[in-house]
Amino acid sequence: MSIKPFPELSHDQEKELVTNLSQWSLGNGLVMYPPNFEGFQANVAPITLFPTPIPKESFHRAVKVQKLFNELYINVITKDVKWFSSILEDLSKHDSEFTGRLFEVYQKSSKIQPLSLGLFRSDYMIHQDTNEIKQIEFNTVSVSFGGLSSKIGQLHQYLNGTGQYDSKYNYKYYDDEDEIPVSTSASDLAQGLADGNFYYHNGEPKTSSVVLFIVQPNERNSFDQRHVEYALFKEHGIKSVRFTLEEVEEHVTVNQNRLYIKSTMDEVSVVYYRSGYAPSDYDVNPEKTWAARLLLEDTLAIKCPSVLTQLSGTKKVQQLLTKKEVISKFLSNSSDQELNEVLSTFVAIYSLDDSNEGDTGRKLAFEEPEKFVLKPQREGGGNNVYKENIPSFLEKLDKQEWGAYILMELINPPTHKNKIIRNNEVFHEDIISELGVFGTTVFNEKTGEILTNKNAGWLLRSKFSNSNEGGVAAGFGCVDNIYLY
Amino acid sequence: MSIKPFPELSHDQEKELVTNLSQWSLGNGLVMYPPNFEGFQANVAPITLFPTPIPKESFHRAVKVQKLFNELYINVITKDVKWFSSILEDLSKHDSEFTGRLFEVYQKSSKIQPLSLGLFRSDYMIHQDTNEIKQIEFNTVSVSFGGLSSKIGQLHQYLNGTGQYDSKYNYKYYDDEDEIPVSTSASDLAQGLADGNFYYHNGEPKTSSVVLFIVQPNERNSFDQRHVEYALFKEHGIKSVRFTLEEVEEHVTVNQNRLYIKSTMDEVSVVYYRSGYAPSDYDVNPEKTWAARLLLEDTLAIKCPSVLTQLSGTKKVQQLLTKKEVISKFLSNSSDQELNEVLSTFVAIYSLDDSNEGDTGRKLAFEEPEKFVLKPQREGGGNNVYKENIPSFLEKLDKQEWGAYILMELINPPTHKNKIIRNNEVFHEDIISELGVFGTTVFNEKTGEILTNKNAGWLLRSKFSNSNEGGVAAGFGCVDNIYLY
Repeated sequence: MSIKPFPELSHDQEKELVTNLSQWSLGNGLVMYPPNFEGFQANVAPITLFPTPIPKESFHRAVKVQKLFNELYINVITKDVKWFSSILEDLSKHDSEFTGRLFEVYQKSSKIQPLSLGLFRSDYMIHQDTNEIKQIEFNTVSVSFGGLSSKIGQLHQYLNGTGQYDSKYNYKYYDDEDEIPVSTSASDLAQGLADGNFYYHNGEPKTSSVVLFIVQPNERNSFDQRHVEYALFKEHGIKSVRFTLEEVEEHVTVNQNRLYIKSTMDEVSVVYYRSGYAPSDYDVNPEKTWAARLLLEDTLAIKCPSVLTQLSGTKKVQQLLTKKEVISKFLSNSSDQELNEVLSTFVAIYSLDDSNEGDTGRKLAFEEPEKFVLKPQREGGGNNVYKENIPSFLEKLDKQEWGAYILMELINPPTHKNKIIRNNEVFHEDIISELGVFGTTVFNEKTGEILTNKNAGWLLRSKFSNSNEGGVAAGFGCVDNIYLY
Repeated sequence: MSIKPFPELSHDQEKELVTNLSQWSLGNGLVMYPPNFEGFQANVAPITLFPTPIPKESFHRAVKVQKLFNELYINVITKDVKWFSSILEDLSKHDSEFTGRLFEVYQKSSKIQPLSLGLFRSDYMIHQDTNEIKQIEFNTVSVSFGGLSSKIGQLHQYLNGTGQYDSKYNYKYYDDEDEIPVSTSASDLAQGLADGNFYYHNGEPKTSSVVLFIVQPNERNSFDQRHVEYALFKEHGIKSVRFTLEEVEEHVTVNQNRLYIKSTMDEVSVVYYRSGYAPSDYDVNPEKTWAARLLLEDTLAIKCPSVLTQLSGTKKVQQLLTKKEVISKFLSNSSDQELNEVLSTFVAIYSLDDSNEGDTGRKLAFEEPEKFVLKPQREGGGNNVYKENIPSFLEKLDKQEWGAYILMELINPPTHKNKIIRNNEVFHEDIISELGVFGTTVFNEKTGEILTNKNAGWLLRSKFSNSNEGGVAAGFGCVDNIYLY
């Protein structure tokens, strides 16, 4: 099918569109706190004026493969504990202050609650020539923008429905249902949290307990989280409480391994991390924050995610899974076709450690750096080194630190000339997009039993094609929305 | 029934409440533009932390009497044209630049569209000792806060539902349904506009035409209007367009008396004024804005309100209606009980003109000013003169200008110690509240036929008891919510 061009509007029409888009966003919570954060003020989140074209086939492939990915990561965590532990041990050597400390928390913890809740997001770029989806990373902790993704879908449907994408204003430019569907992620992620609550209560939908959101101080992206929280209360009657890692110790109490909020004595069924995924989340007060992490891990509350589930998101695992023999082991119940569907999403990933395999990676890093991006094993986005900057970056490091990075083949996504609005300014530049597919699962880390395995909507983020980093809150990218063709 | 005291929260609990209330407001459009208006930023609207107690009986009386008031004003406009015209002529003499010009628009206009749409709001204070509702004014043009009123109801229900009004956080302090119901005004006012659209199309629910919102430039309270607009589109599929009075001429065109938006050739079924009610709306460019008013009046589009309906909201009419013989004439089909229900809402109102009746008013203004407020005949709020300031104010005026004012008995409402949040600051002072009840109606100005007559939710606004003016956008008051006891 052919792609509709972006709507062509006159200068006045675009101005009107921007006004209506901004007011809808401010009137419906498609917002972020401004950088100089004041509690009573919000800005329109950085967003695109139009939805960005995504091949229907690529989109559906990404949605379809999500449950297999959920299962794959569950099995990585549960099916061969020795293998997984040895990887984590090895990584801990290369990155003792973060991966190492997380692994230490896992080792020290009582493991009293075998159930783990995953709110995952698998991120893809689409290969320009083939429309293949290629996985950027699989996120197992603090996946964001599920709330705002639903909102921008509603916004674009509103603009489309009121004819504002049509220069004559008299028909819908896109078909709402077929072409610009709304992501159900806000509601679906809330359903995931409700599932955690349900299994905490041994399969009863109790609303007497609360979900504890662990958040970053001065979070600018609170509203994204709040939309999930509001859906959780509205659709499931489950309340939430929010603390930073630093505040945990003062505000919670543990009794017979059960976690309670001190002020109310509300029992916590699920601890939902929207912090704790990057070293900086522990930097200000390492002792207190790491102690908090262990304290929470050590309770019966279901963690979203547990330390172990979080650690499965390391790039090293992603790299190892690109090998067919490894993935076959962890998806032994899947058909060949399913296996291939998963495998086809991978690009080449090389380790840089002192193994045989690392040899290849190290060679490529210096000989063909223009084909690669260098990524730290850690979660959290950012800190990537691109192309010709790779050799000099590596040279500055101690060789034994190289193992904390992976070398990943660059994907060549198509560019589109969408428009981005940030702080009332409209940018009209080439953008590239990243499709994230959400999934949720409750599983037993000890037995490997999978209690739920669900799709949970999607997210499209875009950034200028000349910018290498894509974090929305960090200021490089924006929340976008799909136009399926 | 006894009144529950306001929730008693610790300092920390109140701080948490304020954070949650602010984020909910920013995340759900309970917002206003900041004074230094930038298009991409919004502030939490000035609101109360808690709902304010209103006697159930008083509230229901105000709701019950609304349709009678709608009917009363329709009949004032339609049943005795000579009488109404003579009043307007007389007022025009005293206030030639505003009432006079409006009346001139009426006289000059073709009156080609006999149907008129009223979105009305009757405002009351409750008398402290008797719980009687006493009418402050009956607004026939640009009634505001129907959108934000629904939002604050949802906010307070959310805070109550999540246990945040209870110092132990473990039960609902109020009963959601019985005690703090949510005003349906956003949806009901949209229904009113849809009714206008319906009758424009001779009783067909067409969505091919649009509603034209006439707005003020740099409106800080846009979101209140937008919530009505979004409901109109979501619930009825009817689109809206927004122009200021100054922009009208450039952007509309008339063909065979039908009004069209130039750029799209969308036909306008309803012209909805959220501007044009105060002299200042015409001040910047009187020629252009008054011409725009006449242009719109002269078309087949149904005006909300027509000039004549707007003029029925003058204080002079309010004053005359306090007389039983006048009101009986205009509610001739109502029972004695109904008449008394309406009459019981009135306080004494005196004219200050050179009639016999004016004599009494003039005497009281100088002898017992402490019992009164002096109000201009014009709509729009503000510009009232209170108590002991009245004599000196009048003395500064030309005596023939006195007729442009009415003298109104002050109501003595109870004070409550609710808390108001503005710009992140919490004020804990005595407040007084004003209850507004919305109503909508489509009627025929020529024949007096009433096509629809509906209730449309309510609004509670509060202000510091030591501040005399209560406009929310102007910065003196705030949007509140009822707790019925």
